Amino acid sequence: MLPFANDYSRGAHPKVLQALVNTNLEAQPGYGQDAYTKRAAQKIQTACQLPDASVFFISGGTQTNQVVISNLLDDDEGVVAADSGHINFHEAGSIEYTGHKVLTLPGVDGKVTAENLQTYLNDWQADENHGQMVAPGVVYISFATEVGTLYSKQELADLASVCHQHHLPLFMDGARLGYGLMSPANDLTLADIAKYCDVFYIGGTKVGALAGEAVVFTKHNVPKRFTTKIKRQGAMLAKGRLLGVQFDALFTDRLYFKISQHAIDLAMKLKRALKDKGYQFLVDSPTNQQFIVVTNDQLASLKQHVDFSFWENVDATHTAIRLVTSWSTTEAEVDALVALL
Amino acid sequence: MLPFANDYSRGAHPKVLQALVNTNLEAQPGYGQDAYTKRAAQKIQTACQLPDASVFFISGGTQTNQVVISNLLDDDEGVVAADSGHINFHEAGSIEYTGHKVLTLPGVDGKVTAENLQTYLNDWQADENHGQMVAPGVVYISFATEVGTLYSKQELADLASVCHQHHLPLFMDGARLGYGLMSPANDLTLADIAKYCDVFYIGGTKVGALAGEAVVFTKHNVPKRFTTKIKRQGAMLAKGRLLGVQFDALFTDRLYFKISQHAIDLAMKLKRALKDKGYQFLVDSPTNQQFIVVTNDQLASLKQHVDFSFWENVDATHTAIRLVTSWSTTEAEVDALVALL
Amino acid sequence: MLPFANDYSRGAHPKVLQALVNTNLEAQPGYGQDAYTKRAAQKIQTACQLPDASVFFISGGTQTNQVVISNLLDDDEGVVAADSGHINFHEAGSIEYTGHKVLTLPGVDGKVTAENLQTYLNDWQADENHGQMVAPGVVYISFATEVGTLYSKQELADLASVCHQHHLPLFMDGARLGYGLMSPANDLTLADIAKYCDVFYIGGTKVGALAGEAVVFTKHNVPKRFTTKIKRQGAMLAKGRLLGVQFDALFTDRLYFKISQHAIDLAMKLKRALKDKGYQFLVDSPTNQQFIVVTNDQLASLKQHVDFSFWENVDATHTAIRLVTSWSTTEAEVDALVALL
Amino acid sequence: MLPFANDYSRGAHPKVLQALVNTNLEAQPGYGQDAYTKRAAQKIQTACQLPDASVFFISGGTQTNQVVISNLLDDDEGVVAADSGHINFHEAGSIEYTGHKVLTLPGVDGKVTAENLQTYLNDWQADENHGQMVAPGVVYISFATEVGTLYSKQELADLASVCHQHHLPLFMDGARLGYGLMSPANDLTLADIAKYCDVFYIGGTKVGALAGEAVVFTKHNVPKRFTTKIKRQGAMLAKGRLLGVQFDALFTDRLYFKISQHAIDLAMKLKRALKDKGYQFLVDSPTNQQFIVVTNDQLASLKQHVDFSFWENVDATHTAIRLVTSWSTTEAEVDALVALL
Repeated sequence: MLPFANDYSRGAHPKVLQALVNTNLEAQPGYGQDAYTKRAAQKIQTACQLPDASVFFISGGTQTNQVVISNLLDDDEGVVAADSGHINFHEAGSIEYTGHKVLTLPGVDGKVTAENLQTYLNDWQADENHGQMVAPGVVYISFATEVGTLYSKQELADLASVCHQHHLPLFMDGARLGYGLMSPANDLTLADIAKYCDVFYIGGTKVGALAGEAVVFTKHNVPKRFTTKIKRQGAMLAKGRLLGVQFDALFTDRLYFKISQHAIDLAMKLKRALKDKGYQFLVDSPTNQQFIVVTNDQLASLKQHVDFSFWENVDATHTAIRLVTSWSTTEAEVDALVALL
Repeated sequence: MLPFANDYSRGAHPKVLQALVNTNLEAQPGYGQDAYTKRAAQKIQTACQLPDASVFFISGGTQTNQVVISNLLDDDEGVVAADSGHINFHEAGSIEYTGHKVLTLPGVDGKVTAENLQTYLNDWQADENHGQMVAPGVVYISFATEVGTLYSKQELADLASVCHQHHLPLFMDGARLGYGLMSPANDLTLADIAKYCDVFYIGGTKVGALAGEAVVFTKHNVPKRFTTKIKRQGAMLAKGRLLGVQFDALFTDRLYFKISQHAIDLAMKLKRALKDKGYQFLVDSPTNQQFIVVTNDQLASLKQHVDFSFWENVDATHTAIRLVTSWSTTEAEVDALVALL
Repeated sequence: MLPFANDYSRGAHPKVLQALVNTNLEAQPGYGQDAYTKRAAQKIQTACQLPDASVFFISGGTQTNQVVISNLLDDDEGVVAADSGHINFHEAGSIEYTGHKVLTLPGVDGKVTAENLQTYLNDWQADENHGQMVAPGVVYISFATEVGTLYSKQELADLASVCHQHHLPLFMDGARLGYGLMSPANDLTLADIAKYCDVFYIGGTKVGALAGEAVVFTKHNVPKRFTTKIKRQGAMLAKGRLLGVQFDALFTDRLYFKISQHAIDLAMKLKRALKDKGYQFLVDSPTNQQFIVVTNDQLASLKQHVDFSFWENVDATHTAIRLVTSWSTTEAEVDALVALL
Repeated sequence: MLPFANDYSRGAHPKVLQALVNTNLEAQPGYGQDAYTKRAAQKIQTACQLPDASVFFISGGTQTNQVVISNLLDDDEGVVAADSGHINFHEAGSIEYTGHKVLTLPGVDGKVTAENLQTYLNDWQADENHGQMVAPGVVYISFATEVGTLYSKQELADLASVCHQHHLPLFMDGARLGYGLMSPANDLTLADIAKYCDVFYIGGTKVGALAGEAVVFTKHNVPKRFTTKIKRQGAMLAKGRLLGVQFDALFTDRLYFKISQHAIDLAMKLKRALKDKGYQFLVDSPTNQQFIVVTNDQLASLKQHVDFSFWENVDATHTAIRLVTSWSTTEAEVDALVALL
């Protein structure tokens, strides 16, 4: 089977795994106090051009969104997100689990626009009943988005500007940050993201690690006693080194960016081939997720050779599917897939 | 000022208050074990033609929705509601506070339709990722709705049928149940409601009581140790008699229905007068809430003589407002309002 | 049956009820914005000699403890209480429901002592693992305590001093505040309590009201958007006037204090009689709750004529019971009880 | 520095790490649907002699306790534990975070005894106010306990018997299960534990894995839609293979038991040496944690050469410390430690 269902079907990039092997028998303190976690944090500060950023490592994306958002919100606040936002659909209600509402805006290609946000905030302010409504407390965006699209530098700057006028922290879910950054359509740097966002995370699980996301607080805005709160929410690993060692490797010699570039190069090759073959795209994605429409006959036939993701029913005879490349996809796999399609 | 802002601006119906006076110095057990609470429950069973219904009394509507819904849901489930549902907007996130998501369907005149519900449930079932999504666990409707509309008997029967096919309890928020039942447009009886809904509540706060809603479980479906759970959620009054005595009075000699009829008669009189004067209605409401559009000049002028509710901005020069009658509205007040409009 | 089981078996003091009757048909704004709630708050400020105190009204004691404590605590903090504290036992886990631990200290006659608190805080600080432990965030005491005892002025000052050195707000549960203040053993004034405590509540449910507790924040320390948070937790009455009118009456002509004095006078009469008859007391209570040991034979006989509370099994043949007076107890009832014992 | 502070200071056992290397580039489904997770589950079923047990893998101990306990409890229930239980102290309030109280019994050498549990349950049942109290819903024990002690087969059977008479599931925290099982003082097999406990977990983090605990439900008692609930609580890894592969290795050729035996052998050697040198033990532990009392002078000197854990202040001049061996401790390290002491 050709593995295009997602970007987490294989283990770790070999260099990341080798780093775990190399450091395995060193005794290190637990709970993120080890030397590798500290070094990884420093490398990320450097990569963000933000020496006083605070960096924490958490095992997975849903958990990271849950821990970060719930600790940024005051009790009566909710998190603003696009209706297509991952926290609104595919995280099993993990935000509501923490007692907070996801306040949805209509996504525009999966994005929260500055204009929609401004309108929502104005309306909320003008509503005489807003004392009985959930107050907006954080703005959540994802980069790349759930449908593979990107915020331009201007869009992100505009959004951050609206957020900061209203004293709302802007949080970016970077589960696929590498794939966004290395897209040919992207004009943002990691340093730009660190500048505009109050908090964001650098996804590891989907970009070369066995597990792990690096959360970056950029504005001296770490919640008080944050590590205790992480522990309380069940999100603290005893062997924090597992995450530290991996991110140390990912941020050595720009590995994170190089392997992301590899995935993007193959995704663009796939996209061109799909275009050439006349497939209809659900959305014009410049990143590692491609969404195309196939007939249900094709669907049945593809299933025998390819792992892909069901996306949605288009009509009685067509289905939208998702094809995903990753750091581990090979050129041969893309070629085989193209031949099948 | 003419009091048309809401249906809770005055105290209790004089007969309800007199019942509190008459019973005041009797010593009674606490926590809902008093004789009046028991008698009120029996009278409600009789009115519902359901002798084995279980009846509980809770102070207010938000609290009732919160306690009932959270105790009907399994941990990973959410409550399905119209996007205009009170629990989705004006209860300050009280459902999310209990850890559950409000799953919204587009409201049709403020209502959840059987068709929309069926489509949603089919889509959910067909979605291969639904294991990572919040599962529907309860369906919430309100009668009358937040915009004053009503479910017909057929609509309620159809909705209940879809719910029960999917093993979903149907819960009706009856904060304004009396005003719905006595509407000339209504074809449902209290017994019908008890038959179709798994749980519903009979609103007292807006219909003649100082505080209090009567929750009716109709299908031997009371959550285990429900009174302990009510206590845990802070919703148990030591002097449960306060609610029991009032509902005992409201369900004596059909007082609840008579005073609701009074409010509806005046609302219909007001509606006819507004129609005659050519006002545009936001929605065609057959109950005690009327929504009309006024110019902003009228708005400013009205504010000096009438208490009404801001509803929404229509355009730069027009605003929608809400005018509400209640058991305590007088004919003279309606006449004075009509004269002003 | 003679009603000595608790202090909430009757309705409201007649003057309180009359105030509800007098104001019943006035139209007033909802959600605590009415004129009576405002006036009650002012009268309480005056009684506390603290014109800039903030006063809120909530329906019951468990709800008040829940709403106040959860909004004073940071997410990873718990509330310190005596092991006999009401929040630790008889509120069905309502604090844990909000996500917070009750951190217990051994009660000394039902009280948290400054010394025990200091030792606990020192140990916590010294524990190298305290980053993995719940941090103390609020100190909860009750006055009178659950066993009827009182803090002296010196004890309260000492406790407040330890709290404030550690930046911990001191919160007093005053469900029986009136009965504490009017005890012959008491040397604290309401103004003293307002001075030493950061937050406290003046209990109405057990002291002459149908329902209602007045929460007083004394140090410009009201949680941000507190009314929205009250709403979210289901604790906001639409007809806030129900509580405002009652407290307005209770704080007119010192009614609250006079009716508390009445209960205490009868409790002291009862206590003297019990002493004279040679009953063993479980604790030396100077307030309206008296705890005595009876034989199980006496217990069975008493049950036929008196409503009292089971307290605990003492041994195979003896049981401790609680006898409670209130604002509504009559001298004749006490005389009849004494005759029976 | 000699690493005796804990049993999680090194990475994974080399065979476990090698398994990750060997399987790294295979594409596998996510979220625990991979072949290795399935195979590990089967091997654990076999090791437990319980082919129909259900096995789930979660990253860490606190998270496992949180997810399992909260999903076993009904809303108004709490978990019974020894006061020294890990969930009561060193998990930062992670149980209360889920809305539930930890109901503590006095630990006897860190254990819940059948007798204490029976007395507590009888008292609770007899308390006329228990409707206002948290109901016991699960019994939590740990094996080995937090102070290194063990339940005998008889003790566990007696405890399970009391639990099952009261329909309370018995849950065992097996963070150090291997070290308990291989102790010379132990008379329980893994199959015994599977027989007596309703749920337990086999700790990996402290016994040879980088992360991971294997939860075993033994009585067809898996909570409904458990994987969705795990996801909602943030505890689902996308690359579930990370845990599956490791446990597959740990349960190949009895590796889990062999490496536990190694740790125990060294702990017993250390214990004998400490006894010979006349050290006072805080508790008589037959497992991999040893607790001794040292003078504060010794403490300062030891700190320069040994990583150990502070346990508690004994008196002004003495401190209790914890020394821990693990699968990775070497005989040379123990010899060096003994030489220093």
